[in-house]
Amino acid sequence: MRSMTILTERQLRDLVTLDLEAVRCVEEAFRTLATKKVVMPPILRLDILEHRGEVDVKTAYVPGLDGFAIKISPGFFGNPEIGLPSTNGLMVLLSSKTGLVQALLLDNGYLTDVRTAAAGAVAAMHLARKDASVAAVFGAGMQARLQLQALMLVRQIREARIWARDAAKANKTARELSDQLGISVIASDSREAAVAGAHVIITTTPADQPILEARWLEQGQHITAMGSDAEHKNEVEAEAIARADLYVADSLAQTRRLGELHHAIEAGAVAEDRALRELGQIVAGAVAGRTDDRQITIADLTGTGIQDTAIANLAFARALAVKAGTTID
Amino acid sequence: MRSMTILTERQLRDLVTLDLEAVRCVEEAFRTLATKKVVMPPILRLDILEHRGEVDVKTAYVPGLDGFAIKISPGFFGNPEIGLPSTNGLMVLLSSKTGLVQALLLDNGYLTDVRTAAAGAVAAMHLARKDASVAAVFGAGMQARLQLQALMLVRQIREARIWARDAAKANKTARELSDQLGISVIASDSREAAVAGAHVIITTTPADQPILEARWLEQGQHITAMGSDAEHKNEVEAEAIARADLYVADSLAQTRRLGELHHAIEAGAVAEDRALRELGQIVAGAVAGRTDDRQITIADLTGTGIQDTAIANLAFARALAVKAGTTID
Repeated sequence: MRSMTILTERQLRDLVTLDLEAVRCVEEAFRTLATKKVVMPPILRLDILEHRGEVDVKTAYVPGLDGFAIKISPGFFGNPEIGLPSTNGLMVLLSSKTGLVQALLLDNGYLTDVRTAAAGAVAAMHLARKDASVAAVFGAGMQARLQLQALMLVRQIREARIWARDAAKANKTARELSDQLGISVIASDSREAAVAGAHVIITTTPADQPILEARWLEQGQHITAMGSDAEHKNEVEAEAIARADLYVADSLAQTRRLGELHHAIEAGAVAEDRALRELGQIVAGAVAGRTDDRQITIADLTGTGIQDTAIANLAFARALAVKAGTTID
Repeated sequence: MRSMTILTERQLRDLVTLDLEAVRCVEEAFRTLATKKVVMPPILRLDILEHRGEVDVKTAYVPGLDGFAIKISPGFFGNPEIGLPSTNGLMVLLSSKTGLVQALLLDNGYLTDVRTAAAGAVAAMHLARKDASVAAVFGAGMQARLQLQALMLVRQIREARIWARDAAKANKTARELSDQLGISVIASDSREAAVAGAHVIITTTPADQPILEARWLEQGQHITAMGSDAEHKNEVEAEAIARADLYVADSLAQTRRLGELHHAIEAGAVAEDRALRELGQIVAGAVAGRTDDRQITIADLTGTGIQDTAIANLAFARALAVKAGTTID
């Protein structure tokens, strides 16, 4: 008898939270990417210009995990005008051995939020100074919140600055994060001031022009740029990528096409054939991460199918353990 | 309040059958492909070699239809050894305006079967002689059955021959189709003999070497080759593609990469830049189809996302009309 489990967003929120186990689960997927025969095809992308919509479909087979996820992520940017969220979507988890559908994870993007923030924590764990205590976050949306929360799982952050184009939103997010996280979080109206003295800088915006300038960067800083998940998006000045002591991609195949890297290559700041590193290689210990407290490191995160497969397996395993969800035969 | 409808294979079988309305629905999608701004990205394909598995994900936005389908088609070829079907899968139907999931169509490949056979009927409607009465079918599986059944919706077929590598299976399928369709269906142990005098030839096998030879072809024949949906598959000899009076692709972007065409180009039989036609252009009347009863015509069908979107919309509209399925809020 074949059956599949259907899990709603509410159930998934109960099953999976942004904690160290989620971070470890995503870290493990990056390790596998560097050490085993992961299969991760290019992202399928559908653009519906007349409705200001786009859909990304991501997938990856990760050896050792029972299932692989196919994730459907729509973004329709006129939705808020009619009272709907702009992003939503779901994951389909299929058996790696038989291709049968194991579970439908109707998460409306929640698991993506978690696995994206978890990747930020993995990057910080391996690239930020061990004693990092001050963070600067560009953006005041969901990922701004979750990235800071995830960073605190791996570094002893005591102060954070939030900059956003919308100052009122930055203020509100700073206030709320301050309450939630129990540290000092202040809104900054200057990007440069926010960056000054920060140990970790996280960019989480949909900017299509650089908002982080190379000349602001200081020795020892780690930057996680995670806003750029499409060709036109760009948060970090090309020169910063060129000058960093260590540039690390989640997937070079993706960042050469979508991420900050491709803008730096296009601008001529980085040679197209420059040898670069991936986060998984550093997690696996195959190449060095930060080796010195004075290095400037940059993690360019575009979001990968391995993260989706990892978090979907975690969610499904937990659902089975507590018999959550609805079963369809 | 946002809700989605879940429809099982059984419900979908009740809602959608291989009839003239299904054929018209797919025909209309091909017309739109040729006349409006359809968006149909390349197929996403994931191969899991160690488990003899593959997954195709197809999608297309078809202007004028409320929703667009994202179809997940796994094929795991070791499944029969453990008592499971090798192919299954589902379609996710999303709103073209908001990207919200409208329906999950848990069809296990049934809707694909229907839309694939319907495309064969569309090809025959526009390319086979009006008086076509004899059909030859290569293969004895599900599509062999459905393609013949679909052909009978658009042409007055009175005789059919079935050839398959497995003669016993050809015999069984011929007997059953004869009973089901009420015409003479006989198994043939010679491909050449099956083709002789046939007006329509349909190839439905997973062959990776040509099984239909150019020298067998006769004036007036129409060939629908629908088995080749992956790079290595090949049913029709390159010379046949080269010599046909009219070659028609479901999607040139796909057949140049996956279909019979790409083998003919690789073999040097067809120039890479030869101007070729698509089925939708013929349906729309933009270019001519068959103009003469003596022409040899070939339809190269790889299976397109527009067909999935068309059949998924049909299924969902009918489900709404009779309030079928389960609603999740």
